[in-house]
Amino acid sequence: MRIDSALLEHRLDELYAIGTEPDGGAYRPLYGAAWATAVERVERWLKDAGLKTWRDAVGNLWGRAEGTDKGTSIVTGSHIDTVRHGGRLDGAFGIVAGLTAVEALLTEKGKPRRALEVVAICEEEGSRFATNFWGSRAIVGATDSPDTAMAEAMRERGLDPTTVASAARDDIDTFVELHIEQGAVLETANVPLAVVSAIVGTAHLELAVIGHPDHAGTTPMDQRLDALAGAAAMIQAVESIARALGKPAVATVGTIRAEPDQINVVPGRVVFTVDLRHSDLGARRALEERIRSLCRTIASERGLELEVRMLQERPPVPMHAAVRSLLTRAAQECGVQAPELVSGAGHDAQILAARCKVGMLFVPSIGGRSHCPEERTDPDHLALGTTVLAKALELLAY
Amino acid sequence: MRIDSALLEHRLDELYAIGTEPDGGAYRPLYGAAWATAVERVERWLKDAGLKTWRDAVGNLWGRAEGTDKGTSIVTGSHIDTVRHGGRLDGAFGIVAGLTAVEALLTEKGKPRRALEVVAICEEEGSRFATNFWGSRAIVGATDSPDTAMAEAMRERGLDPTTVASAARDDIDTFVELHIEQGAVLETANVPLAVVSAIVGTAHLELAVIGHPDHAGTTPMDQRLDALAGAAAMIQAVESIARALGKPAVATVGTIRAEPDQINVVPGRVVFTVDLRHSDLGARRALEERIRSLCRTIASERGLELEVRMLQERPPVPMHAAVRSLLTRAAQECGVQAPELVSGAGHDAQILAARCKVGMLFVPSIGGRSHCPEERTDPDHLALGTTVLAKALELLAY
Repeated sequence: MRIDSALLEHRLDELYAIGTEPDGGAYRPLYGAAWATAVERVERWLKDAGLKTWRDAVGNLWGRAEGTDKGTSIVTGSHIDTVRHGGRLDGAFGIVAGLTAVEALLTEKGKPRRALEVVAICEEEGSRFATNFWGSRAIVGATDSPDTAMAEAMRERGLDPTTVASAARDDIDTFVELHIEQGAVLETANVPLAVVSAIVGTAHLELAVIGHPDHAGTTPMDQRLDALAGAAAMIQAVESIARALGKPAVATVGTIRAEPDQINVVPGRVVFTVDLRHSDLGARRALEERIRSLCRTIASERGLELEVRMLQERPPVPMHAAVRSLLTRAAQECGVQAPELVSGAGHDAQILAARCKVGMLFVPSIGGRSHCPEERTDPDHLALGTTVLAKALELLAY
Repeated sequence: MRIDSALLEHRLDELYAIGTEPDGGAYRPLYGAAWATAVERVERWLKDAGLKTWRDAVGNLWGRAEGTDKGTSIVTGSHIDTVRHGGRLDGAFGIVAGLTAVEALLTEKGKPRRALEVVAICEEEGSRFATNFWGSRAIVGATDSPDTAMAEAMRERGLDPTTVASAARDDIDTFVELHIEQGAVLETANVPLAVVSAIVGTAHLELAVIGHPDHAGTTPMDQRLDALAGAAAMIQAVESIARALGKPAVATVGTIRAEPDQINVVPGRVVFTVDLRHSDLGARRALEERIRSLCRTIASERGLELEVRMLQERPPVPMHAAVRSLLTRAAQECGVQAPELVSGAGHDAQILAARCKVGMLFVPSIGGRSHCPEERTDPDHLALGTTVLAKALELLAY
């Protein structure tokens, strides 16, 4: 069974045209007008494919083909929201590929043995409210009550914010998500498809370096407590520690603020963040401990104070062994050797893993670009990924 | 002749009470209400001391005691404006000390041989408009036309912005400015008074480091073009080059911005500034050239682009040799050995040097603090500085 590349491209174009921003990319924030239009478009496609559709209490859109057997479902899909200036594929591709694969299976293979579902998850990116994984957390029953602004936005879309708990499901057997890699590992290795082995654990640290603000002209170099010079040494340390630990360890200083932020004043306080990731929890913690320890040493050598705060911590999530094997086999049956790859980015699958077996497939991102208008994948790779997804769903549901 | 410390302290307290800010310090921006009140207060003191007063076209306040001889004047003073949250002494001390010294001289020694003047310079700090040294530049005839906002503010104070050129003077023989050090060199060396040998030359550079914004999770360490990691290496280089060159070289990275400034994105662009100072122009240029060269090397090793822009450049200004000797002698006659010191900060004297002989005296700043409410100097040091200033003015004008 081959998936129609032209149909995939056409559907991706249609979705990308919803929420176009004047300065590039699309923006479909949760419960916004563009988001609602996109959900309607996907619902029409699902209905046209012969699926029964409904929206749950948080606005996740489901399409279902009943199976001949009763019991738990096989689900595929991804998220429908985007970041600001988002690209054409992140999230959208997993939905379009899922519905196109299920449509092809229903046409060619008829009614499945197990119920087969496609889901357009309402939110993953955290680009509108102070939340992320809102849709998948609702599916596993792990949401808090929405705040006032979010509750108001839900009501505008006809959703009742007091009923979010009803979105929880316990009848999903397996969730398979097809996604773009959002990095350049596959492209660099010239590999068209990968099976995700695990989603990395992430820790976000905030480091505050405290020195003393002094006049840049009147304070000799040996009388300074320069918070930025200290922070610069720490940023160098973060980079070398991650390099030394080796792949898949990554550590990134993404934000930095110096105070008082004046050209002629020695910075008295600098705050920067570190994003740390590794697929192995022990290694992620070792990475964090080495960074904390070396930064403490640097601060102490320079007479600076250091305050470290954990902003967020998510453990690594391994993909289910049986689903990994099945995805590898599906790829082989389609004539492709799909190596395993650790996902450095977070995905809905890591949340759904709390309630069902999960697996993911990655296709390459050209130049590794994502979360931007330049986000692109070779149409052949999109079609291949969708073909392997269809094969996996066939193996699971027929 | 001893200066009355209590009178000095009282006058400083009175000035500091003008423009008090609710969250600490005083703020007397050019042509503001607090500034105008402070000018009026000083004018009253000058008149009470028997000086003839006037305001020039930009609002510099002058007080003059005629001499028995015709000819050029001996002038002392400093600036009356402050930074935001400014301290009690920066600028204010030079004015209060000048008028108190001249008052004492007139009382004890009678009419001088040469005209003796005290000036409250209207602006030095650049804390309200996009200008600094506005008052001293007007005195040497080096102002541009004020912009619209500044012209409007001048008119509010009864000044005609079209006549600023008339503030220029060519009849000043010597200008002596007494100021707080604003650094901790004198305190550290336990020295109560210094003669300034030169005011450092300053260059302000802006460096833009351009890499590539990438996903912090999906981009392995060896595939990054991390602008912030590169900038951190450069900031380290700036510090070590200044240290290696030795005193009085200083180099400071005071401001930094990372883009896109997100915790989970590798910074694609970082802009930071470098403030470079040295009392010797050749050494200042060597410092700059070493920094440019090492930053270029770092950028090139990391595959980053580097753009360097000169924002501002001021050459070093040596104090006049005859005035330096005279100030050293005045200190000796008051029983103090005053070593020479390079000023790392800019002062009105460096502008006035274009039209007259200039010299400066520094008293220690406790903890090196300045431009903040904690700006303090031992009252004995303030009185000593004022006594030596009076002796110097006596040597010059009697």
